[in-house]
Amino acid sequence: MKKRSGQGLSRRQLLRIGLSGAAATFLTRGGEFAPPLQAQQQDTLPSWNDGVAKRAILNFVRVTTVASSPKFVQPKQRIATFDQDGTLWVEHPMYTQVVYCFDRVPVVVKEKPELANVEPFKTVLSGNREAIAKLSMDDLFKILAATLTGMSVDDFEAEVRQWIDTARDPRWKRPYTDLTYLPMIELLNYLRTNGYKTYIVTGGGQDFVREYSDKVYSIPPEQVVGTASGTTYGYDKQGRPFLTKDPKLLLNDNNAGKPEGIHLMIGRTPYAAFGNSTGDRQMLEYTKAGEGERLAMLLLHDDAKREYAYGPAQGLPDTKVGTFTQALYDEAKSKGWTVISMKNDWIRIFAFEQ
Amino acid sequence: MKKRSGQGLSRRQLLRIGLSGAAATFLTRGGEFAPPLQAQQQDTLPSWNDGVAKRAILNFVRVTTVASSPKFVQPKQRIATFDQDGTLWVEHPMYTQVVYCFDRVPVVVKEKPELANVEPFKTVLSGNREAIAKLSMDDLFKILAATLTGMSVDDFEAEVRQWIDTARDPRWKRPYTDLTYLPMIELLNYLRTNGYKTYIVTGGGQDFVREYSDKVYSIPPEQVVGTASGTTYGYDKQGRPFLTKDPKLLLNDNNAGKPEGIHLMIGRTPYAAFGNSTGDRQMLEYTKAGEGERLAMLLLHDDAKREYAYGPAQGLPDTKVGTFTQALYDEAKSKGWTVISMKNDWIRIFAFEQ
Repeated sequence: MKKRSGQGLSRRQLLRIGLSGAAATFLTRGGEFAPPLQAQQQDTLPSWNDGVAKRAILNFVRVTTVASSPKFVQPKQRIATFDQDGTLWVEHPMYTQVVYCFDRVPVVVKEKPELANVEPFKTVLSGNREAIAKLSMDDLFKILAATLTGMSVDDFEAEVRQWIDTARDPRWKRPYTDLTYLPMIELLNYLRTNGYKTYIVTGGGQDFVREYSDKVYSIPPEQVVGTASGTTYGYDKQGRPFLTKDPKLLLNDNNAGKPEGIHLMIGRTPYAAFGNSTGDRQMLEYTKAGEGERLAMLLLHDDAKREYAYGPAQGLPDTKVGTFTQALYDEAKSKGWTVISMKNDWIRIFAFEQ
Repeated sequence: MKKRSGQGLSRRQLLRIGLSGAAATFLTRGGEFAPPLQAQQQDTLPSWNDGVAKRAILNFVRVTTVASSPKFVQPKQRIATFDQDGTLWVEHPMYTQVVYCFDRVPVVVKEKPELANVEPFKTVLSGNREAIAKLSMDDLFKILAATLTGMSVDDFEAEVRQWIDTARDPRWKRPYTDLTYLPMIELLNYLRTNGYKTYIVTGGGQDFVREYSDKVYSIPPEQVVGTASGTTYGYDKQGRPFLTKDPKLLLNDNNAGKPEGIHLMIGRTPYAAFGNSTGDRQMLEYTKAGEGERLAMLLLHDDAKREYAYGPAQGLPDTKVGTFTQALYDEAKSKGWTVISMKNDWIRIFAFEQ
């Protein structure tokens, strides 16, 4: 992954980022000069069409970072949180980490051959897609527990890195880390250029995402909040200490778990939060409940051609992966959250597209 | 607290810090020039006597931050973790947070009068010091649970701030936040000037310490790892979301819980770790087990005159608060950890001393 994403994603992104970053700094520095919205738009967020979503972002940054603004936010208070799956990168047809877990099943069974005839491992090994698709949540948790816990933290990290380096998404035939959304990478950089500390707040595994977050999103491990199991401290035969990943769940970082995780790991209410599904609802509510200017945005996947289309909000096809209900859509509209239309708001989705 | 510690501690410290910071930057910048140890010592860490401890710090920073050093550490990897009680501020005769909890008992009993005749609350209300000193750990946990959980996060934060603003240590008659160790404040700043991200990793309550960490140590809430209970997300009568502090313990950030907490909250192994008691042993072991240059230091309270003297290491009086056993002392010596003698290594202990 090091070479690939370092060359593929980052070079192109850096070009853009360099431009938009410098422009953003110039435009917002000094504090006395509040730039006209139009001037900002020319250079920042180049993959975003002019529209309600882009304007909401530019306006938020302007009113919270220009020193003369009545809604100015001190730099140390500037926290922005991003869901990952479906918000920063592709989550369909299945969450990437779940693909990882399924891919790990043969290795786990090789180490524990007695699992070969035990469900749900037997079904996964059969390769029968129809049967696999019917596995229950309980089955899924058994697979997650077997593939994400029980090993040392060091071994786990090495396994994830190796997989991330070699696995390919079946549709685009590219590393999963290439399937990050360019407009969101621009947004992360735009916020950071304006003093915002960017966090991932994901229902995915904290340790899993931390393995690539810095390379892919320039978000260091300590700024990744995710579903987390405990670890147990122990010593190897040579007396060297190491940590083992426990099955014990400490934080289920979904739904109400997102604001709870933000409090646990950050200890401040975000000023901006970004998500795309019902799992992000409470994070956005919590963010908007803070005083002063707050930004809450939801990405709607309404672009079947360039990516995927699912809801069931707005008549889009229903899904179990990244569900965006009509109720969530209505709450967004009634509470002043901004819905990003992938189809209409994004000029380009991936960095690898020409 | 805002005014007091902002004026008392910080002004004097800033003078020192400004000097040592600039000098440190100059001396370590560029990477080609490794300054002689003597030159460094003149301007940095002015409250530290020349000795093994000060030299260990200066050497560590030099070899990990000078680019030409074979043990150079990338800036983003530079993590330093500090225990709080007994390492950054006074912990005797009793941990400050425990004093807070005892002070809160009358308020809690006022809200729940039925507790007045229930132990251990009855004993605490009696004011009988001898009886209070004999309370068991179980009793103590009951007091902690009653005074630290059950309220909203916002209410708790307001209560802590109010207490920190008004409570006084009985010996020095000063706010507890004045009882931070000036040499450690210098050390925090020296490390930060050299690109280290400084964390508190405390057995104390994460939410408690976060209320003053930024003002007192310039450590923001997201860089405080501590004993943490869960929270529960809910809504008030107006439908506004808020978090309630649960009694459910998520992380007991002591002993093995310190490396476990570091993994949970930071996700990187520290390059430097500082403690003062058996509760810090695993954090120091874990830190030293990392590759490359690592610094592990323990503060020995051997200064009965200026602060307190306790061990029982090295024949010092035994204590239940911040125990530093002879076994810990011997492990430190055998593993290359540095023991700081408060008596011999520190010229000055508090900023308020002339």
